[in-house]
Amino acid sequence: MAEKRRVLLVVAYDGTAYSGWAFQTGTHNTIEEMLNRAIFSLTGEEVKVIGASRTDAGVHAYGNIAVFDTVSTVPGDRFSFALNNILPADIRITSSRDVAQDFHPRHCNAEKTYEYRILNTKIPDPTKRLYTYHFSMPLDEKVMQEAGRYLVGEHDFTSFCNVESQALSHVRVIKDVTVRREGDEVVINVTGNGFLYNMVRIIAGTLLQIGRGKGRPSDVALMIEKKDRAAAGPTAPPQGLFLMEYRFIDGIPEP
Amino acid sequence: MAEKRRVLLVVAYDGTAYSGWAFQTGTHNTIEEMLNRAIFSLTGEEVKVIGASRTDAGVHAYGNIAVFDTVSTVPGDRFSFALNNILPADIRITSSRDVAQDFHPRHCNAEKTYEYRILNTKIPDPTKRLYTYHFSMPLDEKVMQEAGRYLVGEHDFTSFCNVESQALSHVRVIKDVTVRREGDEVVINVTGNGFLYNMVRIIAGTLLQIGRGKGRPSDVALMIEKKDRAAAGPTAPPQGLFLMEYRFIDGIPEP
Repeated sequence: MAEKRRVLLVVAYDGTAYSGWAFQTGTHNTIEEMLNRAIFSLTGEEVKVIGASRTDAGVHAYGNIAVFDTVSTVPGDRFSFALNNILPADIRITSSRDVAQDFHPRHCNAEKTYEYRILNTKIPDPTKRLYTYHFSMPLDEKVMQEAGRYLVGEHDFTSFCNVESQALSHVRVIKDVTVRREGDEVVINVTGNGFLYNMVRIIAGTLLQIGRGKGRPSDVALMIEKKDRAAAGPTAPPQGLFLMEYRFIDGIPEP
Repeated sequence: MAEKRRVLLVVAYDGTAYSGWAFQTGTHNTIEEMLNRAIFSLTGEEVKVIGASRTDAGVHAYGNIAVFDTVSTVPGDRFSFALNNILPADIRITSSRDVAQDFHPRHCNAEKTYEYRILNTKIPDPTKRLYTYHFSMPLDEKVMQEAGRYLVGEHDFTSFCNVESQALSHVRVIKDVTVRREGDEVVINVTGNGFLYNMVRIIAGTLLQIGRGKGRPSDVALMIEKKDRAAAGPTAPPQGLFLMEYRFIDGIPEP
């Protein structure tokens, strides 16, 4: 037995088969639970991982973060390999390391980047149906990019937040929004310091509406002003959304 | 009731959930069977579609071809829309049309292009696991391209054919092999006039071995000469393989 220490995992997953990162809806089929079970298989310890971002059912991730405490002798950087031997193929630990005992991924100054992928073709591609939102009408990505600029900055994003949100404040900072065409896909990237419940999916749904000619880019400013969920566009479906990267602005403290 | 006529479908599918195009292994969970059932739902006719290519379990397609006969009044070009409303989301008809009553997709002078996708990263990407073969060791795509050139031409491809093949002749013409790197993926394209059982997967497995430094490109010529399956590389797994396109050299005869 070694001393108790904290280990950080960078977690990639295909969200298709899961009801999200965290227990929410009465099912235990969550990413969180799969990690807890894999760590138990490896070390015999009953842990509860702390996740950085509670992604919804069907949402994917390349860079979600989980931490947990262990007294096992497994070296920090070997957890990725050892857990990948236990986890199902739709969850991969891309790296692991020891971190300071008091490091908490949700109580840090951080920047997250999400990506939303829209397959903009007449007929859907069966092999992309789980990883894009298929939208068959023409989209103007330049207009979408222009609309996205109105989101950048510190705003009250009540209009871009699921009404069931329990966040105390709806003020967040969006640092960057880019919209580009990549082959048959329109790809939206959003970077910010924090995101409200369904926020990126509502942003994607709103930019989609403007991109197909319903409204003008500057309407986004009015939507923000109204602080009313009904003012913004629909919530785009989960399968187009990827949590790409988590950057801890002040670094990750060493053990 | 209209007169009996023949309709052609271009079929795209995610092969993950199916035991292949055709009934082979005692299961009815085939692409062929899904098409037969969807046509029955639409027209009430018990048809058996004729497929151009009997892809294996787990193999994907963008451009497989099926034909069937019907006396329904549905216009040829409307079958795609109508069947897509019935078929599951992992099978899409990308286009449909009336063709000559005697058109048979396997008795035509045709050229097919297959693609084999290798994800060449240290850690597998969970969202690509069903559509690539993950290979973590370094691959030299230029060496693979060089090796591929020895396959081009008319050869007896016995070494590149599953030993269970019942084909009368193993002579085929490969028109082109290209290997390129596309981001994290190494992509092999093979075009030819016909392919033997597992042929593209054995080509991919052989190029992979040479690309990782096991043998030289010119070894491919010796493998072909031996006419012995044991001379070539292993059969690469199905999920990296896509039937991209079917070109009927003499065109598709009108009704």
